Amino acid sequence: MKRIVFYVSDSTGITVEAIGRSLLTQFSTLEYEAHTFRFIDNEAKALEVVEAINAVATNDNGRPIVFGTLIDANIRAHLEHSHCLFFDVIQAVLQPLADELGMSPRPMVGQSHGVIHNHDYQHRMTAVNFALGSDDGLHTNHYDQADVILLGVSRSGKTPTSVFLALHFGIQAANYPLVEEDLECLQLPKPIKEWRKKAFGLTITPERLHSIRNERRPDSQYASLRQCQYEVRQVEALYRQFGIKYVDVTRMSVEEIATSIMGQAKLES
Amino acid sequence: MKRIVFYVSDSTGITVEAIGRSLLTQFSTLEYEAHTFRFIDNEAKALEVVEAINAVATNDNGRPIVFGTLIDANIRAHLEHSHCLFFDVIQAVLQPLADELGMSPRPMVGQSHGVIHNHDYQHRMTAVNFALGSDDGLHTNHYDQADVILLGVSRSGKTPTSVFLALHFGIQAANYPLVEEDLECLQLPKPIKEWRKKAFGLTITPERLHSIRNERRPDSQYASLRQCQYEVRQVEALYRQFGIKYVDVTRMSVEEIATSIMGQAKLES
Repeated sequence: MKRIVFYVSDSTGITVEAIGRSLLTQFSTLEYEAHTFRFIDNEAKALEVVEAINAVATNDNGRPIVFGTLIDANIRAHLEHSHCLFFDVIQAVLQPLADELGMSPRPMVGQSHGVIHNHDYQHRMTAVNFALGSDDGLHTNHYDQADVILLGVSRSGKTPTSVFLALHFGIQAANYPLVEEDLECLQLPKPIKEWRKKAFGLTITPERLHSIRNERRPDSQYASLRQCQYEVRQVEALYRQFGIKYVDVTRMSVEEIATSIMGQAKLES
Repeated sequence: MKRIVFYVSDSTGITVEAIGRSLLTQFSTLEYEAHTFRFIDNEAKALEVVEAINAVATNDNGRPIVFGTLIDANIRAHLEHSHCLFFDVIQAVLQPLADELGMSPRPMVGQSHGVIHNHDYQHRMTAVNFALGSDDGLHTNHYDQADVILLGVSRSGKTPTSVFLALHFGIQAANYPLVEEDLECLQLPKPIKEWRKKAFGLTITPERLHSIRNERRPDSQYASLRQCQYEVRQVEALYRQFGIKYVDVTRMSVEEIATSIMGQAKLES
């Protein structure tokens, strides 16, 4: 008996999905099934969505819940008149905002992700190329151009974090793996020593690291809890010794790791 | 005379930034300066934000506009009582949603990004590794594991799109560059021929491609408008000849390219 949820957007749907999930998570016992309709930017497409809504409205699970971010009033009207509980998270705020600003909103569909901001697009594309080119200790001679250099032991989340920082914020993030040799002698590798001020460490509990590594190389020495305990203890000692800020990523999503580093390393997008 | 805008979140702030931008873009003449406060998850941090708000409330630009996603009622109350116009985009919808569901919301701070969903995290991490390992035609022998294989000429946006699909949706996206040789003989490279059903093409206007390439290698043959015109014409002919769906990315953000491919290629996150 899952409740049916629809996300309907005139753009990518990424924002409305995030808001909807955020809201629905507040009801921990709710079971639901979600569907996203993206780029619903004309009435014909809106009518197709209405049809999909009405089709499931007839079953016994309660009327569908629809979260929308729809700028166009005609499109919104179709949704509002379908057999659902409809929320438009943009609209709820738009009028009071217009009153405060003393301006009239001019419907601009799908502008939130900077469609026409080529500069921003280029900036992020360059950052992604930088992240890929500086992944896992590659091209340390480009560190002069890095905004941040992420450190950590193997499988602690450096790569996804670098890539997220690049894609979402246009931050040029390199990453460098700290290996047995560095950990044993408690010394920073040469390129990191030189750019220590840009370095930011990741750490993780040995148990979690063990579980992640075990999926990759089951029952290896590399994945053993003992090895993970050793590496984590040493890497944290290394961070402290050289005054490198670090974050424990164990219970964090990539988004959380990235934004938390943004804050602590005072990076600006 | 820029208006000051604050985004305040008990989590990453990514969602509230997106909503705020979406709203503010509706007022095309508005000039504003935005600041984000992330992980505001206790009253002490809330009071620091209030201080920051009140500090700028005294200048002549009108009171600050604050967009929040704050689950905790005490934290929210502090913000509501500061010298600003405060909108909580979650709260506006939470009560009517609770009424409909016949459930009480249980405050769960920062759950939207799946903090404790290790499975999801692992899934996306694996996808990012796949995208990096299959970037730019690498490791075509892994194409059996690909959800989609992006095609396109050099600099048409394949890499950022693959990485976004992986990071945001956990989609295993490979990408393969179509080069002069493929374009000249209008033939698909062997690994693509074999996995044609997973292929999805990117295209772009010659003018835009010219401008992107010119930033990378100014005044080269590679970046010349003539070369770009040739490659785009041929690549589109190639897509049509082999029945490969494709999208024109010219005026799209990475998010838009990725979600539009999700829809057209019927990929599920």
